[in-house]
Amino acid sequence: MSEKEGIGIVKTQYFTFAEPPQDIKLVCGQKLGAITVAYETYGRLNADKSNAILLLHAFSGDAHAAGYYEGEDKPGWWDAMVGPGKAFDTTKYFVICSNCIGGCKGSTGPSSINPKTGKPYALEFPIITIADMVNVQKQLIDYLGIKKLLSVAGGSMGGMQVLQWVASYPQLLRSVIPIATTLKHSPQQIAFDEVGRQAVMADPDWRNGNYYGYGQPERGLAIARMIGHITYMSDESMEEKFSRRLKDDNYSFSFESDFEVEGYLRYHGDSFVKRFDANSYLYITKAMDYFDLSNGKLFPSGTTADIRFLVIAFRSDWLYPPYQSKEIIHELKMRHVDSTYCEIESTYGHDAFLLEIEEESHLIRHFLNATYEQAK
Amino acid sequence: MSEKEGIGIVKTQYFTFAEPPQDIKLVCGQKLGAITVAYETYGRLNADKSNAILLLHAFSGDAHAAGYYEGEDKPGWWDAMVGPGKAFDTTKYFVICSNCIGGCKGSTGPSSINPKTGKPYALEFPIITIADMVNVQKQLIDYLGIKKLLSVAGGSMGGMQVLQWVASYPQLLRSVIPIATTLKHSPQQIAFDEVGRQAVMADPDWRNGNYYGYGQPERGLAIARMIGHITYMSDESMEEKFSRRLKDDNYSFSFESDFEVEGYLRYHGDSFVKRFDANSYLYITKAMDYFDLSNGKLFPSGTTADIRFLVIAFRSDWLYPPYQSKEIIHELKMRHVDSTYCEIESTYGHDAFLLEIEEESHLIRHFLNATYEQAK
Repeated sequence: MSEKEGIGIVKTQYFTFAEPPQDIKLVCGQKLGAITVAYETYGRLNADKSNAILLLHAFSGDAHAAGYYEGEDKPGWWDAMVGPGKAFDTTKYFVICSNCIGGCKGSTGPSSINPKTGKPYALEFPIITIADMVNVQKQLIDYLGIKKLLSVAGGSMGGMQVLQWVASYPQLLRSVIPIATTLKHSPQQIAFDEVGRQAVMADPDWRNGNYYGYGQPERGLAIARMIGHITYMSDESMEEKFSRRLKDDNYSFSFESDFEVEGYLRYHGDSFVKRFDANSYLYITKAMDYFDLSNGKLFPSGTTADIRFLVIAFRSDWLYPPYQSKEIIHELKMRHVDSTYCEIESTYGHDAFLLEIEEESHLIRHFLNATYEQAK
Repeated sequence: MSEKEGIGIVKTQYFTFAEPPQDIKLVCGQKLGAITVAYETYGRLNADKSNAILLLHAFSGDAHAAGYYEGEDKPGWWDAMVGPGKAFDTTKYFVICSNCIGGCKGSTGPSSINPKTGKPYALEFPIITIADMVNVQKQLIDYLGIKKLLSVAGGSMGGMQVLQWVASYPQLLRSVIPIATTLKHSPQQIAFDEVGRQAVMADPDWRNGNYYGYGQPERGLAIARMIGHITYMSDESMEEKFSRRLKDDNYSFSFESDFEVEGYLRYHGDSFVKRFDANSYLYITKAMDYFDLSNGKLFPSGTTADIRFLVIAFRSDWLYPPYQSKEIIHELKMRHVDSTYCEIESTYGHDAFLLEIEEESHLIRHFLNATYEQAK
C-alpha cells in the first residue's frame, strides 16, 4: 500500500507508568497501581512539537484509529479521517490516539491483572470517571514531550473526554473538536446505560463480575449491545436500511427472527461479546453517566483560556441530540470563546460521526488549518 | 362514591365461546379451542343499540378501563376518560372494554390451560396477530347483540386494533378514534420489541417458556419492561421528572443505582413482573411487530365505508411519532374519508395518551357527540 492511499501498517504501542504521579489519584479517591495506556501515532512530531493532535475514541473504540494491523483487512475506526491528505492530514500533523482506561483494548481495565492478587481486577477495579481517563492521557502527552496540543478531537464519549481536557488542562490546548456529544449525560442517556448494565448483571454467567476463566456473560452483554445499536441509529436510517423486509418470504409465526432488523441486531449483539469485556461495559457506561460539566464546570477556574472550539452535531442523532451541542455553544458564547457550531444534515443518527466523512472532513480540515496557521 | 364522581365499583366479566365459529381460525392457520374474553361494560345499552363504544387497551393493559374493583384504591387505566360527564360519557353511551387474547388478564393466552394437555399452553399457544384479537372482539360484540358500534377507540396497541376493526369490519362502524398509533410497526419499533423478547428468553428462568409452577423469568422480564419504560417517556419528560437528581447526596462509586431515574426504572421493572406474564410479553409484542395495514390494506375491499375518523398524536411521542398518525391521515385523505387529525402539544412522550386528559376529553367528547347526532 502506498503512502498516498493511507497510513499503511500500524502497531499499537503501550506506555506504562509504574509509579503513578500524585495527580493520578482517581476521582473516587482510590489509587491504581501501575497504569498502562495503549496508543497509536500517525505522522511525525515536528521540531517545535507544535503539530500534535490527540484523538479520543467512543465507548467501544480503541487506540487503532487508522491504518491496518499486519495481515488484517479492516482499517482503524476513523481511517477515513486520518491519513495523508485526509482531514487529520498525517503529512502535516502528528496524530495520537489513546485508548481509555477502564476498557479492554490494551489500557488498564477490569480485565487487567491486579498486581496485588495476580488475578484480573474484576469488580475490585475502582470506578473511574472521564476525568480519570483524561488524567492518564495527560501522562501520555507528557511522556511524548508535548507541551501544547494543536487540537483534541473525538465523538460521543470521545467528545466528553475532549470537553474534560478543556476543564482539566486548558493551558495545554490550542483548539478542541467535540463531536456528537454533551456537557452532561441526560436522564434518558443514563437510563439506556442502566438497562444495559442490568442486562449484563442479570446474566448468571456474569458471576458478580468474576467470570474470567469461565467465559463472558454473553447473552446479557449481547442484549446490552442490541439496545445500544438501536440508539446509535435513527428511525429514518433503520427505515432506509431495513424497512419491514423479512429474512424469508413469509412470517415464521414463531419467535425466530422474522425481520432483517432483528437478524442485524442479533448478529451485532453476538459479535460484540467476542471483542468487548462485559465488566468494561459496566465501568465505561458508569463513567459516562457520572460525566457532568454543565453549569460552569467546563471552565472551573472561571477563565476560558485561549482555545478555539469546533462543535459538530448531526440532525438525526437522538442519542446525543443537537440541542446538547447547542448547550456547549451557549456556554462558550456566554464567555466569548472563539467557537463554531455546525449541525450536519444526516439521517444516520448517532453513527453519523463515523459515517459523514465528507462533511466532517471539510469542516475539520479547514478548522485545523486555520488553527495551525494562527499558532505559527 | 356517588355516580357523579365516577362509575363506582365494577366487575370484570367473561365471555367464553366453547365452539369457536369458522372465522376464528387464526391468521397463522391454527385454531384455538374454547376462547375466553375478559371485558367490562359501563353505562347502559339504549333501546336501538346505537350508543355502544368499544375501547381497546395498550400492550400491558386490561379490560379494567374505569371504576374501581371492590376494595381497591386504584381505578381502571382510563378512568379519567370514562364515566358520567367524562369524555366517554356513561350517562349517554354504553362503553365496552375488551381485553385482548394472548395476554394474561383474563382472556385466553399462553398462561391459560390448554384443554388438550391440562397444562398452561406456554409456547404451544399459537402466534396471534392484531387481526386475531379483533376477530375475537367481533364475537363479543355479536354476543352483546350490537350491530353497529358508535365508535371504537384506543391508544398505542389499542389504536392498532382500532385500525384493524376498520380493515376487518368496516360495515360495523360509525366512527373510530386511533390514538398515538401507526399503520405498521417500523423497524425501530420492531427492534425495541425484539430486544425485550431477547431479554426475556435469555433469562434461564424462562425455561423455554415452561416456567409455570417455577416462577417467572423475573430479571429478563424486568429488563424488557425497563426498555419499554424509556420508550414510553420522552427526553423532555425524563429531564422534567428526574434531571440528574441523585438518590443519595453523593455518587456511590459502585454499580448500585445512583440516579433517581435508575431507581425508577428498577422499581417499575420489578413491579411489572408481579402483574404480567413473560410469555404474554413475547406473544403480544410479536402481534404488534406483524401489524401492517400500510399500502391500501386499511381498506382491503377498496371501498372506504362511511366511517368518521379522529386521529390523535402527541408532539413528544417518539415511540409512535406524529408522522405515523399523519400517514394514517394521508391514507384517509386520498380516499376522501371524513377525518380529523389533532397533534396535542405535550412533553409526556408516548405516555401522553394516558395523561393528557383535558385535551383528549375535549376532542373526543365533541367528536362522539357529533357522530351520535349524525347517527340519529
